Amino acid sequence: MIERRIAEILRSAQPDESIKAQGWVRTKRELKGFAFIELNDGSSLANLQVVLDQNLPDYENILKQLNTGVSVEASGILVESQGKGQRIELKAEKVKVYGEADPETYPLQKKRHSFEFLRTIGHLRSRTNSLGAVFRVRNACATAIHEFFQQRGFLWVHTPIITASDCEGAGELFRVTSLDLNNVPRTEDKLVDYSKDFFGRPTYLTVSGQLEAEIMAMTFGNVYTFGPTFRAENSNTSRHLAEFWMVEPEMAFCELSEDMDLAEEFLRYVFKYVMDKCPEDMDFFNLRVDKTVLETAENIINNQFERITYTEAVKLLEKADVQFEYPVNWGLDLQSEHERYLCEKLFKKPVIVSDYPTEIKAFYMRLSDDEKTVAAMDVLAPKIGEIIGGSQREERYDVLEQRIKAQGMKPEDLWWYMDLRRYGTVPHAGFGLGFERLVQFITGMGNIRDVIPFPRTPENADF
Amino acid sequence: MIERRIAEILRSAQPDESIKAQGWVRTKRELKGFAFIELNDGSSLANLQVVLDQNLPDYENILKQLNTGVSVEASGILVESQGKGQRIELKAEKVKVYGEADPETYPLQKKRHSFEFLRTIGHLRSRTNSLGAVFRVRNACATAIHEFFQQRGFLWVHTPIITASDCEGAGELFRVTSLDLNNVPRTEDKLVDYSKDFFGRPTYLTVSGQLEAEIMAMTFGNVYTFGPTFRAENSNTSRHLAEFWMVEPEMAFCELSEDMDLAEEFLRYVFKYVMDKCPEDMDFFNLRVDKTVLETAENIINNQFERITYTEAVKLLEKADVQFEYPVNWGLDLQSEHERYLCEKLFKKPVIVSDYPTEIKAFYMRLSDDEKTVAAMDVLAPKIGEIIGGSQREERYDVLEQRIKAQGMKPEDLWWYMDLRRYGTVPHAGFGLGFERLVQFITGMGNIRDVIPFPRTPENADF
Repeated sequence: MIERRIAEILRSAQPDESIKAQGWVRTKRELKGFAFIELNDGSSLANLQVVLDQNLPDYENILKQLNTGVSVEASGILVESQGKGQRIELKAEKVKVYGEADPETYPLQKKRHSFEFLRTIGHLRSRTNSLGAVFRVRNACATAIHEFFQQRGFLWVHTPIITASDCEGAGELFRVTSLDLNNVPRTEDKLVDYSKDFFGRPTYLTVSGQLEAEIMAMTFGNVYTFGPTFRAENSNTSRHLAEFWMVEPEMAFCELSEDMDLAEEFLRYVFKYVMDKCPEDMDFFNLRVDKTVLETAENIINNQFERITYTEAVKLLEKADVQFEYPVNWGLDLQSEHERYLCEKLFKKPVIVSDYPTEIKAFYMRLSDDEKTVAAMDVLAPKIGEIIGGSQREERYDVLEQRIKAQGMKPEDLWWYMDLRRYGTVPHAGFGLGFERLVQFITGMGNIRDVIPFPRTPENADF
Repeated sequence: MIERRIAEILRSAQPDESIKAQGWVRTKRELKGFAFIELNDGSSLANLQVVLDQNLPDYENILKQLNTGVSVEASGILVESQGKGQRIELKAEKVKVYGEADPETYPLQKKRHSFEFLRTIGHLRSRTNSLGAVFRVRNACATAIHEFFQQRGFLWVHTPIITASDCEGAGELFRVTSLDLNNVPRTEDKLVDYSKDFFGRPTYLTVSGQLEAEIMAMTFGNVYTFGPTFRAENSNTSRHLAEFWMVEPEMAFCELSEDMDLAEEFLRYVFKYVMDKCPEDMDFFNLRVDKTVLETAENIINNQFERITYTEAVKLLEKADVQFEYPVNWGLDLQSEHERYLCEKLFKKPVIVSDYPTEIKAFYMRLSDDEKTVAAMDVLAPKIGEIIGGSQREERYDVLEQRIKAQGMKPEDLWWYMDLRRYGTVPHAGFGLGFERLVQFITGMGNIRDVIPFPRTPENADF
């Protein structure tokens, strides 16, 4: 195991210290009688500059091997750097080459590569500056999420990935089966005989852990999920993944306004955490990927989000001096262009829109007294659009039963969900956040496939 | 959202403080002119005792409703408790009932329930003392795992759940598909036409994130996975789940002895963390579930693990004055009874067995110089058996290629895995830990279905 990471050496090591660094060569510069190697071990964007001089034993031979991608261990003494860009550098006394990387075939040579090309070498692409920074920030986001909830006494609950319920809308579900597709067993009516399948019934990959998280919230008060979820939607866009990670807090004794408070506090916490832990990576994104990355982070950390109802939003959109492609009308869902107008043009910051029309929202959202709206809220972010969707849940048995029936579903299929309203029901609320959208929001990365190590999309399940 | 949890009130609140507590009634005791309610909000095993006296407005009516399972908000003043078992109690000035729980039908009445019965009410079972304690400890274990790795600079990497590679052994894989099983498309040769499936090829649920974690370790040095994994094995036992969570660290520039060091340090850290954070729950397990729980924790925290090679293990087993059911012979895998003899009888603590015969281990484990053994290690724990399995990985291109071929697989199917050995290969190692086995190990719970909220087993995918 690497004992002292380059990030730490660059941060705190002093000249004259004797050190050993291990990593991969990013670049080599040969000058007369000596050479510079940029060594990276993934702990930071910055490399450790290693100076080799011709007095090093076996100098010529070693130098020949030190191509981009080669793994080495370099030992020596730290010295103050004469060059620009680094405080210290390593004067090598010994360089051991672990593994070569033939410059004729190694795809990551010095030049810049398109993100499209890098996706075809998903097993190597994290070795570039940009993807390396993305995955360090992704880790920081994930850690921030756990810290945020754990500090507040929320339990991390693992909701099932394989599920027999398809209540959030079939058609977009992946089926999970142990049946032999070449020889599917049939019942007497010639239909698939699911009694022969592993679980004795049709099963799917989960689209959300919310309903199960509600079970846990009814015991533990505050819980959250953080795990993979799936959509078999055939959307080949820069915003969709078939497999993505989702965060879903669920709180008992909680109403919609507190749910919004939590969502806002949550986003602020994660941005602040990433800015604290990965300043160098964030500077990189701002410089190379999207010039508004730091501004966005500051904006989130320092401003209250705007809060308006759907009804107010519709009025504002009707008054807007912009020609929208899609109509604006009370009762219709907001389109991406409308959401962007609200947070990018009008308020110039995240906007929480609440109290949507009942007809366009899910059965489990709490019905208002006039029955026209439900206690739903979406957090809309500039450039990203909807980053969080949440609601207060319908906790009244009779109302929920009606709402389920109204959507053509059967309450008995959700008997356990109904039971939560039968036994010790309480007002409760929660939200869902697509983790990759959050990483995009923070890093400014344009394509969602570039913020998850191994994206799953139509026709693509490589690595 | 609950503002002040009962755990915190019990820990630090003082008499005369005015408080509001929210939760669910566990029990009610009526005496002449007053009554005691045990209120639980899931934040701790202990309940807050609420005293209602007959001067409370609407006393009789409220009391009638306060059955087990009912959700309430109780406000009042904390007073020193006269009774045994608690430092303080709440003298209620106002009690608001949120949701009832009909004692005629609510399944969790005061009596003890078997774990078998509780599995049939998976949506309510966490409301019992035992399952509540399990899921608090499960959360503490999970948090400890992230803290352990993050403190050491490991990145949490999300390896794919849906995978097109089935290289760890087919037959036990769940298939993932978007095809209509009632009408599977066929090629001209009458086989399944996977080009019509979502990913354009056969796909499965992952059995391990290791190979992809190796990709990430070759950039970031130290990484870990923590996510769901799957086995379609038809094992209806107390030790098997079809869906379970796994932790898999992977370290570059790391050999087997450091891998063992990490495994040992890791287990010690998690046990210590849980003992610190959940002492009350751990006492409960020791009292009610398994009388050796605290002893085991102390044992892990305070003792070095024993380390022996497989060859030494075989010698020790051959010398044992025990009649084993299965034969002991160099080259045969160790059976559960052998593992238990080593750690329960002989060493009375965890034992790390290393350097197993090449024939019985996976293709990716590093071959020793004499080719008879590979650099594998298993951590065996008393009562649990194998809790961790790890290895140094074969980093030499030619050797790996031979090993893959020897197992009847094709190196070109693992082209990207081979590439890691072609470009900047380094010695590296890692291990896998079944998270539910760990929770069982810590809590002493006998059946693995009782340490995961919603177990997935043959014929069972409820909730």
